[in-house]
Amino acid sequence: MKNHQCSPSCSHHLSDAQPAVKEEFDEALHTLLPALPSNKKVMHDATAPTSTSTTPAPARISVQHHYIPANARTILWGYFSKSATPIVKIDSGDFVTMETLTHHANDDAERMVQGDAGAESVFYWDAKTKNVNRRGAGAMDAKVGAGGGLGVHICTGPVHIHGAEVGDVLEVRIVDVVPRPSANPLYQGKTFGSNAAANWGFHYGDTLTEPKQREVITIYEVDASGERNWARAVYNYRWTPQTDPFGVVHATIDYPGVKVDHQTILKNHHVLKNIRVPVRPHFGTIGVAPAEAELVSSIPPSYTGGNIDNWRIGKGATMYFPVAVPGALFTVGDPHASQGDSELCGTAIECSLTGTFQFILHKKADLPGTPLAAVQYPLLETADEWLVHGFSVANYLAELGPDAQSAIFTKSSVDLALRDAYHKMRDFLMTTQALDEDEAISLMAVAVDFGITQVVDGNWGVHAVVKKNIFPSSE
Amino acid sequence: MKNHQCSPSCSHHLSDAQPAVKEEFDEALHTLLPALPSNKKVMHDATAPTSTSTTPAPARISVQHHYIPANARTILWGYFSKSATPIVKIDSGDFVTMETLTHHANDDAERMVQGDAGAESVFYWDAKTKNVNRRGAGAMDAKVGAGGGLGVHICTGPVHIHGAEVGDVLEVRIVDVVPRPSANPLYQGKTFGSNAAANWGFHYGDTLTEPKQREVITIYEVDASGERNWARAVYNYRWTPQTDPFGVVHATIDYPGVKVDHQTILKNHHVLKNIRVPVRPHFGTIGVAPAEAELVSSIPPSYTGGNIDNWRIGKGATMYFPVAVPGALFTVGDPHASQGDSELCGTAIECSLTGTFQFILHKKADLPGTPLAAVQYPLLETADEWLVHGFSVANYLAELGPDAQSAIFTKSSVDLALRDAYHKMRDFLMTTQALDEDEAISLMAVAVDFGITQVVDGNWGVHAVVKKNIFPSSE
Repeated sequence: MKNHQCSPSCSHHLSDAQPAVKEEFDEALHTLLPALPSNKKVMHDATAPTSTSTTPAPARISVQHHYIPANARTILWGYFSKSATPIVKIDSGDFVTMETLTHHANDDAERMVQGDAGAESVFYWDAKTKNVNRRGAGAMDAKVGAGGGLGVHICTGPVHIHGAEVGDVLEVRIVDVVPRPSANPLYQGKTFGSNAAANWGFHYGDTLTEPKQREVITIYEVDASGERNWARAVYNYRWTPQTDPFGVVHATIDYPGVKVDHQTILKNHHVLKNIRVPVRPHFGTIGVAPAEAELVSSIPPSYTGGNIDNWRIGKGATMYFPVAVPGALFTVGDPHASQGDSELCGTAIECSLTGTFQFILHKKADLPGTPLAAVQYPLLETADEWLVHGFSVANYLAELGPDAQSAIFTKSSVDLALRDAYHKMRDFLMTTQALDEDEAISLMAVAVDFGITQVVDGNWGVHAVVKKNIFPSSE
Repeated sequence: MKNHQCSPSCSHHLSDAQPAVKEEFDEALHTLLPALPSNKKVMHDATAPTSTSTTPAPARISVQHHYIPANARTILWGYFSKSATPIVKIDSGDFVTMETLTHHANDDAERMVQGDAGAESVFYWDAKTKNVNRRGAGAMDAKVGAGGGLGVHICTGPVHIHGAEVGDVLEVRIVDVVPRPSANPLYQGKTFGSNAAANWGFHYGDTLTEPKQREVITIYEVDASGERNWARAVYNYRWTPQTDPFGVVHATIDYPGVKVDHQTILKNHHVLKNIRVPVRPHFGTIGVAPAEAELVSSIPPSYTGGNIDNWRIGKGATMYFPVAVPGALFTVGDPHASQGDSELCGTAIECSLTGTFQFILHKKADLPGTPLAAVQYPLLETADEWLVHGFSVANYLAELGPDAQSAIFTKSSVDLALRDAYHKMRDFLMTTQALDEDEAISLMAVAVDFGITQVVDGNWGVHAVVKKNIFPSSE
């Protein structure tokens, strides 16, 4: 089962509590998997004994595969919440395929929203109706819009994992990641993404050319078939004040999902000609719900993960999160076609993706003596490496008090994030390799690489990378 | 000639002004190259027409290969100087093989100095004689020792490049890097290095265990044959106060080259058992002489290079430096067997190496329109990547005034180094790819990785990496 991938023979289950979602699930699944047979079978684990065996039947013999389409009812826009209603409840070992939508799709609605039932459902907004009103963890009467844009990412979920309790570790294996094709027939076979050089970028105000405080959108094209491993720029434009359907004018990018009126912008098609951007599909925001507050902005990453923005969190990678609330409440969003370490200008190539995940619950009592014993932060495992994620403030919600969600933006610092990454890698080496502190410190200087994850999410990030093959075999 | 490597058939030349050096050169060369024939031939460039050709003879038809052994007369200890006497004067295109010694060899003199004529020459120090008195750019009457230890690296050279003028760019190709075997018969076939978790380390004072301000030396063994690509720890010890031959007590590591009396330390052999540290042989300190001061500490890197401490500056890599003084005055030292990005605890595996370099001079007038047009900082080219080096202060000698060499230590910041790396990568992309600023900024967010080079050299470093294969072919 370790290598299972979503296929037409899979059995997909959704919570009975969400009948409307189940209906959309069938529609989405048929779109994605045209060969899906009408009679689904429960998928059995071939390694488990059957009930006709002479050995006692185990309590559980099947692994379920769930599917969550992205639409207005299956996403949280811009926040994590320990009180959110789960979209599915699953068991450890189950798979979930989750559609994720980029919150920048309306930078070019023709390419990234039009004809896409899921995206149209999420982004729908006219003078009377706004399908997803809350966008962010802020006030519902905020001037810029409900939720205040204090949190911007469209996050699919949550997924509740049965039996997950505070102190456990949730392992999330990223089994597959595929781009979401444009639903507009004009762009068949193509996927698009948007890069916003935005007001929260590291570069903002520090440019050679005027106006120094400009925001620039660059639309990129990604091969939806996955045959080409590079993206190319299509055109760019400077942000102009955009008026949303409720009449609020957005002079800068201050609220997610505002549809850009292409009559107001000037497209420049002479952009990054013939430059091939390596594709690194991954999820910028991935994690479980924090315990410290009811509504938590999706922007600053923290001990439960969230907006980590590490491009290595793609197909084949595994994330480990400390469970902070019952059921864990996993969500994923902010899909990226590509990003560089630092995400310098504020965003990646923001591009809708669909991921398939397997969830393994590690109970607290089983952790000592394993590499997961030190997981009090989001830990990443790739084929060859372990990575810890340091932040300017490790758990800003707990450390910065009641105003944490605004205070964290005054603490942004790579220096602090490096200090946190040093602490975490030291603890990882000491805990998992039984090294003393002097050994861990020497090893960090000669065999661990520290890189800048992002400097645009308030709680800035530094990751520390250690290669697995330096450690002795356990055999 | 591009792929020339040092061999017994090479012609090696040294400045006539340094007869003592020439003598040592012959000795060193015979040691390194046992098969060297006694009658050396001038090596001709096979691609150049000969004088018997009907085409006019070019002004220069041979490429010289020079050899600089490391000894008390061929090194500068702890500083760069525009007034230093060149060890060799060469032409553009020439090769120089340069022995480099680690300034940490006396952490274990038995393994890294004993029996090694070059190292013994450099480190020799008794109550009356100190072969290399000045160590650092400080005062000669400094309490800790002459030069004050304001600069610690043993740098071989300088190499003067004929015709190099201010505004030119010096290309330095690292053709080969080999470890320097222990000269002690007890350790035949092995090379050793030292890692010091030192008082200038990022971790110092921030430890779990007491005493928090301890310094720890870990001795590593490297395979001198180059057959194994990993190093292993041999033992470690905590620094104890060491008394130098002039009677000064060094309670901490405050002066380079002090021989550690192994009677005063406690060796712990149970260190990093079975852990294999990947070997990344490279030169921590490499560059040309800055113009701004007569004597410049070797510790903070700057626009002319110096103590960059990027482990990618190894075999196969090419560095580009802006020439700041006539002749460029290239020096190299601080050899490392391995280092991680950040060099967290203060040093790498400090390990003597011998490098072979080819020097290509690019005249100022020829730079516009080439990738070298923007080189006002140390630029690194590897097989697949271009890297720019950002520092907390780009040219601290010019920017921080007369007290720059002490003031820089109050400016240490990864945040500032990232800002500088952003500026440099932006300029590199705009200059070499003819991108406008908006294109460069978008590309930096989606296809450039920013990593932490070092946080231990006063002028902290961030490197930005862009893959060459993203750019369109020039054909």
